[in-house]
Amino acid sequence: MGLSSITNLKVRFQECDPMQIVWHGNYFKYFEEGREDFCKNNSISYLHAQQHGFATPIVKTECEHKLPLQYGDEFEVETTFINSEAAKMIFHYKIFSSKKLICTGSTTQVFTDKNSELVLTNPPFFLDWKKKMGLVK
Amino acid sequence: MGLSSITNLKVRFQECDPMQIVWHGNYFKYFEEGREDFCKNNSISYLHAQQHGFATPIVKTECEHKLPLQYGDEFEVETTFINSEAAKMIFHYKIFSSKKLICTGSTTQVFTDKNSELVLTNPPFFLDWKKKMGLVK
Amino acid sequence: MGLSSITNLKVRFQECDPMQIVWHGNYFKYFEEGREDFCKNNSISYLHAQQHGFATPIVKTECEHKLPLQYGDEFEVETTFINSEAAKMIFHYKIFSSKKLICTGSTTQVFTDKNSELVLTNPPFFLDWKKKMGLVK
Amino acid sequence: MGLSSITNLKVRFQECDPMQIVWHGNYFKYFEEGREDFCKNNSISYLHAQQHGFATPIVKTECEHKLPLQYGDEFEVETTFINSEAAKMIFHYKIFSSKKLICTGSTTQVFTDKNSELVLTNPPFFLDWKKKMGLVK
Repeated sequence: MGLSSITNLKVRFQECDPMQIVWHGNYFKYFEEGREDFCKNNSISYLHAQQHGFATPIVKTECEHKLPLQYGDEFEVETTFINSEAAKMIFHYKIFSSKKLICTGSTTQVFTDKNSELVLTNPPFFLDWKKKMGLVK
Repeated sequence: MGLSSITNLKVRFQECDPMQIVWHGNYFKYFEEGREDFCKNNSISYLHAQQHGFATPIVKTECEHKLPLQYGDEFEVETTFINSEAAKMIFHYKIFSSKKLICTGSTTQVFTDKNSELVLTNPPFFLDWKKKMGLVK
Repeated sequence: MGLSSITNLKVRFQECDPMQIVWHGNYFKYFEEGREDFCKNNSISYLHAQQHGFATPIVKTECEHKLPLQYGDEFEVETTFINSEAAKMIFHYKIFSSKKLICTGSTTQVFTDKNSELVLTNPPFFLDWKKKMGLVK
Repeated sequence: MGLSSITNLKVRFQECDPMQIVWHGNYFKYFEEGREDFCKNNSISYLHAQQHGFATPIVKTECEHKLPLQYGDEFEVETTFINSEAAKMIFHYKIFSSKKLICTGSTTQVFTDKNSELVLTNPPFFLDWKKKMGLVK
């Protein structure tokens, strides 16, 4: 189970390519906007991580496209935090437009410390956040 | 087995984000540049597909990051065409910089006809190309 | 004198560069979003122009920066249509954040016909729109 | 009079918009690539400025478009440093493709110190560079 948030966006002209559809790489901008919204709504941000001495680099991204978006289309990004025991932040995304599923995707972030070394256990600030959100006991 | 090509590129300033590294979504630009290079070198392009009445939309993308790229870094994209029996164009990518593996990724394209309908069998022009390249008998 | 509209936006993470500020070229995305909003609000769009057989390519852009925008900043784009007798669409832009002027800019568009030839007199659909908006008698 | 350099580039697919031409804001990426090339060739970079305690934010950009570029077009960016007495770095750009002039443009940068305050006189490192290049006595 996870926590979710919804972000409403609209396709910008220059996000579309010569095929008249949103260029595939731009969906990661939409996912990011969904993720940032989620983090803001749930009081956990990359700035927050930085204050505790951690960076949260993305180590994996993926997207599966079902239908294209076109210029002017309005859509919503459903961002879901996937609760995992690993020292990772995993988000799943679904984009809908006119109630149709446009694409699904995911991103995985890890924690690195001030020496840019990978951290293998969950940082205390992250565990505290999980507790506050009722994701761990 | 597959066919490969190498594309040499350099990180542009505005491809980097406030973390001083290439923004994760920009790797799909590099993959695209690798794929277009491959297609040009091997006489098969999206324009080529268009002339035969087909579009080749991307239906899946993924990227796994090992190390970050920074402003000014020179790197090479190794693009490999994955020979599959399905009516798909699958490419795998590896990016190297200073002989270190930066990331791996893949893209999957399908064929759609003039009515934007998915084509389930390999279009003749694509089979002809595969024969020419020695990928099918 | 001119007509104006206001568009509210927020800086996306990947619109910022390694200097931690919005990369200068990205302001033209914001101007475009302002212009498209203006056009939608005032029933004149590039799709509208297309239906009448015209394209409206941008022939000139400029931007003067006063203060930087950073990740997460909220801002408004004030888009003003500049009423000119020439066969051109000229827009001026001002971006404000926390009531401070961030930058000013402009874009100039011309009309081209179906043969991509420059049109030197105002197309009828554009004159009709101007009349409707009270910009010409 | 000024110093110039030439940078050879090719239009990327995702730099083109639904009008099948390079989106106007992307020309500032090309200008930046030309400017960075110039700076590298002439041993003066933004990193160089940083080492001396200065940042070089862009305060003005402009571009005039003569002809469009399309996907796959090869072109060259001619970058010229404009020698001015003011404490500014001004570059002019011309883009050519198949010997035709595509666009002209310019960028203006100022110097700011470690407190982000505008510097009104040329920093010593910049004057030294100008002398080395024969631009001042």
